[in-house]
Amino acid sequence: MKEKKAIVLLSGGIDSTTVLALAKSHGFACYALSVSYGQRCQHELDSAKNIASQLGAKTHRIIDVAINNWGGSALTDHSIDVPHTDSDDIPVTYVPARNTVMLSIALSWAEAIGAYDVFYGANIVDYSNYPDCRPDYLSAFEKMANLATREGTEQRPFRFHAPLLQMTKAEIIQEGTTLGIDYSMTISCYDPDPQGRACRHCESCRIRAKGFSEAGIKDVTCYV
Amino acid sequence: MKEKKAIVLLSGGIDSTTVLALAKSHGFACYALSVSYGQRCQHELDSAKNIASQLGAKTHRIIDVAINNWGGSALTDHSIDVPHTDSDDIPVTYVPARNTVMLSIALSWAEAIGAYDVFYGANIVDYSNYPDCRPDYLSAFEKMANLATREGTEQRPFRFHAPLLQMTKAEIIQEGTTLGIDYSMTISCYDPDPQGRACRHCESCRIRAKGFSEAGIKDVTCYV
Repeated sequence: MKEKKAIVLLSGGIDSTTVLALAKSHGFACYALSVSYGQRCQHELDSAKNIASQLGAKTHRIIDVAINNWGGSALTDHSIDVPHTDSDDIPVTYVPARNTVMLSIALSWAEAIGAYDVFYGANIVDYSNYPDCRPDYLSAFEKMANLATREGTEQRPFRFHAPLLQMTKAEIIQEGTTLGIDYSMTISCYDPDPQGRACRHCESCRIRAKGFSEAGIKDVTCYV
Repeated sequence: MKEKKAIVLLSGGIDSTTVLALAKSHGFACYALSVSYGQRCQHELDSAKNIASQLGAKTHRIIDVAINNWGGSALTDHSIDVPHTDSDDIPVTYVPARNTVMLSIALSWAEAIGAYDVFYGANIVDYSNYPDCRPDYLSAFEKMANLATREGTEQRPFRFHAPLLQMTKAEIIQEGTTLGIDYSMTISCYDPDPQGRACRHCESCRIRAKGFSEAGIKDVTCYV
């Protein structure tokens, strides 16, 4: 039987790592893709490289695209502080059109190698205010992708899978633990110290810690 | 009155140069964007830089994104020859999902600076076999973009303009000449010599030469 290929977007955090393990468990040969968009946290990319290797990805590529050039987000613009409190608005950590840029690059790789499945870790439970995690957005992207390409047809369309979309962080951690993931490899912090240790205070650290706590699983994060 | 900003995708060829002049003539402050995706022709980028300056773009940025890493096109993969004959299929010069990647990066910049208009030179007359120039694709991209972003709303949506979509090359050259463009600044050749001189034989050279001829305007192209 011909190998089923999938592109898996891999940031090095809990969600994308779980997605990679899930895609593997469904029998896909996984082509892991990390996009370096000038995020504060270069440790994420080292972490992604290690995870791709540990979880048996077929290959791992890091593609640079300097959308941090124009700022507009606390994740890429060092003049905006990462917030330590919650907000009901779209967070300042939102990076303009980031998911669209990453999914487009994934689509390009998918079409070039004949992969029809793209997996990524979008989630609307913990990140309800990011516009580019909404189900409406995801289906609009898929529709556009199948019109954009030589390979996408009604008979054999590209599919964009966001298997964690409706899961809480605790459920994701439980699922990944069942799949054998060692989450100490992963990094979630928006603002780690130079050694890559988590700050404990940013939104991402707080969501992560709450996830381990609610899952009843020991938090293996390396904190400052 | 507040300045209307537009992102203009600028490759350095006839079409995108004409689009930049058109957007300027409609009163937009133009932010020119060139995407370096490992195309064979680095001369295109030098040409784009010069054109942005000559036509009075507010600024010009070149963003690298190495989608040539995975080949799949004669424009980025040096093991595939640029063809010198026509074909009814999608040409081998098609780059997987290239327009989607470029428009996504344009969307990111647009959202970051509060531009709601993105101009680019898609055309279906001379490039009828490129899937990512089809009107259906363009409207699907626009719909996706307005779901993807913080800024896109029904009251103030992002608009993607492809003003040359239904024009022949001759009509484009006539329009640009009326706008005062000196087309000797532009480069179309897929396979120029090291000095940037056009090969005269590739599909792009032939479409260009035919355009000048049909427009009744002197072909100012620098050929090998």
